[in-house]
Amino acid sequence: MTIRAVVWGENIHEHTNAIVGGVYPNGMHTAIAAGLNEHPNIEATTATLQEPEHGLSEARLAKTDVLLWWGHKAHGDVEDEIVERVAKRVWEGMGLIVLHSGHFAKPFKRLMGTPCALKWREAGERERVWVVNPRHPIAEGLDDNFVLENEEMYGEQFSVPEPLETVFISWFAGGEVFRSGLTWRRGAGNIFYFRPGHETYPTYYDANVKTVLKNAVRWAYNSQGALTSIHDAPNVPVERALEPIVERGPRLHKAGEEGYK
Amino acid sequence: MTIRAVVWGENIHEHTNAIVGGVYPNGMHTAIAAGLNEHPNIEATTATLQEPEHGLSEARLAKTDVLLWWGHKAHGDVEDEIVERVAKRVWEGMGLIVLHSGHFAKPFKRLMGTPCALKWREAGERERVWVVNPRHPIAEGLDDNFVLENEEMYGEQFSVPEPLETVFISWFAGGEVFRSGLTWRRGAGNIFYFRPGHETYPTYYDANVKTVLKNAVRWAYNSQGALTSIHDAPNVPVERALEPIVERGPRLHKAGEEGYK
Amino acid sequence: MTIRAVVWGENIHEHTNAIVGGVYPNGMHTAIAAGLNEHPNIEATTATLQEPEHGLSEARLAKTDVLLWWGHKAHGDVEDEIVERVAKRVWEGMGLIVLHSGHFAKPFKRLMGTPCALKWREAGERERVWVVNPRHPIAEGLDDNFVLENEEMYGEQFSVPEPLETVFISWFAGGEVFRSGLTWRRGAGNIFYFRPGHETYPTYYDANVKTVLKNAVRWAYNSQGALTSIHDAPNVPVERALEPIVERGPRLHKAGEEGYK
Amino acid sequence: MTIRAVVWGENIHEHTNAIVGGVYPNGMHTAIAAGLNEHPNIEATTATLQEPEHGLSEARLAKTDVLLWWGHKAHGDVEDEIVERVAKRVWEGMGLIVLHSGHFAKPFKRLMGTPCALKWREAGERERVWVVNPRHPIAEGLDDNFVLENEEMYGEQFSVPEPLETVFISWFAGGEVFRSGLTWRRGAGNIFYFRPGHETYPTYYDANVKTVLKNAVRWAYNSQGALTSIHDAPNVPVERALEPIVERGPRLHKAGEEGYK
Repeated sequence: MTIRAVVWGENIHEHTNAIVGGVYPNGMHTAIAAGLNEHPNIEATTATLQEPEHGLSEARLAKTDVLLWWGHKAHGDVEDEIVERVAKRVWEGMGLIVLHSGHFAKPFKRLMGTPCALKWREAGERERVWVVNPRHPIAEGLDDNFVLENEEMYGEQFSVPEPLETVFISWFAGGEVFRSGLTWRRGAGNIFYFRPGHETYPTYYDANVKTVLKNAVRWAYNSQGALTSIHDAPNVPVERALEPIVERGPRLHKAGEEGYK
Repeated sequence: MTIRAVVWGENIHEHTNAIVGGVYPNGMHTAIAAGLNEHPNIEATTATLQEPEHGLSEARLAKTDVLLWWGHKAHGDVEDEIVERVAKRVWEGMGLIVLHSGHFAKPFKRLMGTPCALKWREAGERERVWVVNPRHPIAEGLDDNFVLENEEMYGEQFSVPEPLETVFISWFAGGEVFRSGLTWRRGAGNIFYFRPGHETYPTYYDANVKTVLKNAVRWAYNSQGALTSIHDAPNVPVERALEPIVERGPRLHKAGEEGYK
Repeated sequence: MTIRAVVWGENIHEHTNAIVGGVYPNGMHTAIAAGLNEHPNIEATTATLQEPEHGLSEARLAKTDVLLWWGHKAHGDVEDEIVERVAKRVWEGMGLIVLHSGHFAKPFKRLMGTPCALKWREAGERERVWVVNPRHPIAEGLDDNFVLENEEMYGEQFSVPEPLETVFISWFAGGEVFRSGLTWRRGAGNIFYFRPGHETYPTYYDANVKTVLKNAVRWAYNSQGALTSIHDAPNVPVERALEPIVERGPRLHKAGEEGYK
Repeated sequence: MTIRAVVWGENIHEHTNAIVGGVYPNGMHTAIAAGLNEHPNIEATTATLQEPEHGLSEARLAKTDVLLWWGHKAHGDVEDEIVERVAKRVWEGMGLIVLHSGHFAKPFKRLMGTPCALKWREAGERERVWVVNPRHPIAEGLDDNFVLENEEMYGEQFSVPEPLETVFISWFAGGEVFRSGLTWRRGAGNIFYFRPGHETYPTYYDANVKTVLKNAVRWAYNSQGALTSIHDAPNVPVERALEPIVERGPRLHKAGEEGYK
């Protein structure tokens, strides 16, 4: 079993900001994918905003088990059609891991149904990521906390739906806290949001962060194949009811008619 | 304290289908609102698809504590701008109660972030609604189950996010089950989905159904006022950090700059 | 409507430790109750470990809407019979608010079914309590965070079940975080754990803490009366089945026999 | 990787009731274990009430990855010490799968903290188990529903804590519904309750039921080893605080002193 992961990168700051370009000379997405490819059961490739269909064609997504998403400056440039395509695949069972400033990415907001807003500060301050759910698969191999010496601060309230489980909570030197690792299921798809990863710091080279992303890809992976029926609202005619019933009273739809959507 | 409820009705079947028109001569929304108005602390009015802005102007929604939504045939005719307006108000704390075929209504799908699909059958079969969460405020005054002798069947899988709490589960004569009462919070807003209410049956005159809707309005009501800050992603500058910190390392944004959305 | 609250206090440190006695000359429970009694709809009385049945007779509990619990040094001295009595009333719908070191109180551990352990440090350090769920009834009237200048530190992992909702998360000067406000429902009873309240500091005189406790009592209150049926496992005989069925195949129990417990 | 499962059986009805003895001549536990042993990565053995320490010595449990529990008539005969031992191992990460009448088993009630009561009827009626969470690992390989032609009825309200996820809901011919597959995490341990399995019917030979149990064992398995620290409440002294702090104000405990439990 090999998990086919695609790391989607906005791929702009690396080219327009010397600091980011210096930290990630081949792009953030490439660095993230390289970290994943250290693991034998993960095969990570990349896709970027600039490619046709942002690198996420129907055919590509159909072969993607887990999608990781990093975006920041150009959320608005992501085509709505691609956003719907990603959401559709998540409902069918594709895993989705949303990174850092991706909290405002269109596919994440689409799947959460909430503003996904938060407080922020760019001061290179210390972040301590605490494991509040040890033995959760995403926390495998971590100590009870780990430090990122320089990170952007994100502070609560993080306006997302109550998660299935809270895995990480961050402490910031400037006084804020943040739920840094949260899980949800949407349809058949597993979703994980992971907070760290500001573009001006080498966060994605950090050993603990790499461990989290590897764990998250494995956790989000659904081996059971696409649940394409999730989009259907099938009529079950009276004559095919599981228990014998007799039609009674008036009805709106003619036999065999489609439902309204 | 009076809770200002607005019952939104699609208001089509009542005029195009003789059976529905016979059951609800003044419209389904009017019947639902009348049931709510039997209670001294609820002041229910109505809004319909056909009114300007579907009856849901900014000003009207700003004065709405709880919105109830019944739609079926014309989900697609609801303007996207109004959908966003409703979602925004829910995030700020307006309650939302989605009824029956409203599972496919745009505002519900927008807030759930999932397909919200299900199985269905129009056979006037018996539905038993079971209370699985007695003493939940929405179940107040009900027995352990109640019967709707003629209803449309909805069957699982109902592709919505795992709820905060499951209040009701329905049994259908034809062999299906359905989670008929589910709660979620999205931002500051309480959301309740309630299954019964097919337009060709007098469901909204049923005493138990009326009790549920009255309870749900009270449960969904948030007395604390609009959380307008939920849309903001404020920067917290270093010099205003709660704990004294010193800026370190590079940053992307200039002081005072807005974040990217 | 008046909510009858009982504040249970262990009532030991106040008498054996001069500092605690100085801060709370009439006992912590008395100070907490006094704070609640500032509100017209709450009528708070107290009970202590030293009273017969720890002040929690069957009759007293039957008239208690919400129980608050502060204990620390003498968890082991609480009689198991009283613990079961409290749990039983919670299942029937009595609210329970567990304070600070009460995380290890027998009734809380009984109702959680987990160790309820945590890290701790007594250094009088600064605690910032962040609201992660604004407009939750328990957070009414609070800013986005409030400070307790001197508190004991509690650190994660807090080994409790995943809550219904997370209301507060605390930041500590020494680097830890803690989920300081968590809600659960157990049977018909609402449970809230609130972290602050170390006995050597005047925490229960703090205006924000008092607001939280008042809000929590209101939130935990269940106006629907005791769900005494929650303890029953009734047999539903074939002849009283809701839908007509015919008995088939072998059975273990004779008609009218009790089930095994 | 081989998952070490232990199937615990009460082992009474098989010897005292001719029907049960006829259906399960070697005991229900043996039949359940045999079903699991059809799968190469599961190694299932059995333990019974009658063995010393009910077959669950410290040493045995230390080597158990997932424990399955079937009991009915003799819940009260299970020693409290063994119950605590099981709970402790679940908190450390051992999976627990509770079967049918095990809803009243001491370890389950201990871990849930609720009455775990329900309605019941022994009429050999038809049960339809519906999958409400397709692609959940426990539902792998199942259709959208499956039938058990003769089963005992269990009806709501099932007084357990709100689950992490609802996987199955059952429909019964006599008119009831039941949440038949529920998951929880307690400490580091995964818990699954599965409803079917009345002793007078051949339920554990059913192909779908066998699939569910195999899936559940795999789902409940935690490969990360025992989280023995879950029982600890460690003091973090000021001088070892992660962030430099200075002790302020009074304290109760002397340096190095244990906390109260």
